[in-house]
Amino acid sequence: MKIIGEKINGTRKTVAAAIAQRDAEFIQNLAKKQVEGGAHWLDVNAGTHPDREVDDLLWLIDLIQGVTDVPLSLDSANPAALTAAIGKVKKTPLINSISGEPDRLNNVLPIVAQYGCEVIALAMDDKGIPNDAAGRLAVVRKLFETTRTAGIPDEKVYVDALVMTIATNTDAGRATLDTIRAVRAEFPQAHVSLGLSNVSFGLPVRSLVNRTFLTLAIAAGMDTAIIDPNDRELKAALLATDLLLGQDKHCLNYTRAFRKGLLEPNKQPA
Amino acid sequence: MKIIGEKINGTRKTVAAAIAQRDAEFIQNLAKKQVEGGAHWLDVNAGTHPDREVDDLLWLIDLIQGVTDVPLSLDSANPAALTAAIGKVKKTPLINSISGEPDRLNNVLPIVAQYGCEVIALAMDDKGIPNDAAGRLAVVRKLFETTRTAGIPDEKVYVDALVMTIATNTDAGRATLDTIRAVRAEFPQAHVSLGLSNVSFGLPVRSLVNRTFLTLAIAAGMDTAIIDPNDRELKAALLATDLLLGQDKHCLNYTRAFRKGLLEPNKQPA
Repeated sequence: MKIIGEKINGTRKTVAAAIAQRDAEFIQNLAKKQVEGGAHWLDVNAGTHPDREVDDLLWLIDLIQGVTDVPLSLDSANPAALTAAIGKVKKTPLINSISGEPDRLNNVLPIVAQYGCEVIALAMDDKGIPNDAAGRLAVVRKLFETTRTAGIPDEKVYVDALVMTIATNTDAGRATLDTIRAVRAEFPQAHVSLGLSNVSFGLPVRSLVNRTFLTLAIAAGMDTAIIDPNDRELKAALLATDLLLGQDKHCLNYTRAFRKGLLEPNKQPA
Repeated sequence: MKIIGEKINGTRKTVAAAIAQRDAEFIQNLAKKQVEGGAHWLDVNAGTHPDREVDDLLWLIDLIQGVTDVPLSLDSANPAALTAAIGKVKKTPLINSISGEPDRLNNVLPIVAQYGCEVIALAMDDKGIPNDAAGRLAVVRKLFETTRTAGIPDEKVYVDALVMTIATNTDAGRATLDTIRAVRAEFPQAHVSLGLSNVSFGLPVRSLVNRTFLTLAIAAGMDTAIIDPNDRELKAALLATDLLLGQDKHCLNYTRAFRKGLLEPNKQPA
């Protein structure tokens, strides 16, 4: 399982404040902590001010690259911001994201193709998120037609299967798990990712629902998760799941995390 | 998900002592607590003294039936003990267990057939537990030949897919999950159960491994687990998994458990 660290996101209040106040230390700490937590990419979202997005994004990228070499996930739908960012990043980034929405496709896809980036592709289009796996798979098929036509190889595509809240529709979990399995079967070279915290919206003890869903999604074939790599319970569930699915040779990652004190929620890290 | 409460087991030290000292209160408390915890059956194992097994088992059954009407899972390979117990129980019991071992089959199967019991069938024979799913499925096929010949309908059979410790073989989890899926596909009327704590033997933070494996096993098709129904973390994982797989209509069981304070490990029950 690979992890996209989700924390440097300008739609979060503390990050928005740090960006507004140019609080470099706050941002760099978030970057360092997530890398220590095992992030394979750091998502960078400069927030929701179109007029400031380019400046803010470039400022964030400079800061992050000052403390880590982990590649970035550029979280923007703004072609100007993406192009400027790609000029600055040290490693070819992941682009977050395209979808079946014509605007996203027309604005973002050419940039992904031109710079040979990896890309997250959301299983939704201008009609929204289909309720069931068949509907999402139909959207995903069209997306692959488009990415293939643009010369983007399947292995650079991370399909986000999307999940709705289970509190209002108890079929929501199954729809996502079925989508993951279907994408895996039909596009075996592609990756499957998920931003999973939506699933628990409106329910009590959300962390329990989130970590259980993480386990189910990994078993269904998800290989990349957009999470907080410093969420100890989520990380422990991830390690245990990899272990139980035979993806942790000699139990090495699991026992290493144990020795660091990371598997027991009430213990401080060593 | 249905639960077989595992605690009244004479191979456990405290239960062995309670049996030896005829400590009725201890046994009845174990019974009541497990029923409160949601057990659909109570497993009853009188321990490992063949000369005392019949007496001890009948004593246990009387006590348990004094405080609950939940059906029993008679955990014995001794035909005399089973026959005596069946004469005492108020509800047709589950028999724990048969396997491909000739002794078990010859001694236990006729009793199951004669009294119309449900039965746990272990996916192993006199050569031991096959390492992979194909080997276990071969044993299971032979078992169904035998139970069908004896007139036992598939829906009364609970196949225990068995799990070995992952610490010495990281393929052990997959072997069990593949067995569960294979049995489900080939014998859709039958049930699949599991005593899962073996999986974590020799590893740190066993409860994390156990509850993660419970989630994976339910997703693979297990519908009955042999667990401690008062293990809060395991129970919380079970409820969250049922919820996420669409098996908890209107999130009723999940939110009810939350209101009882059962979903948060560090909170005392309401």
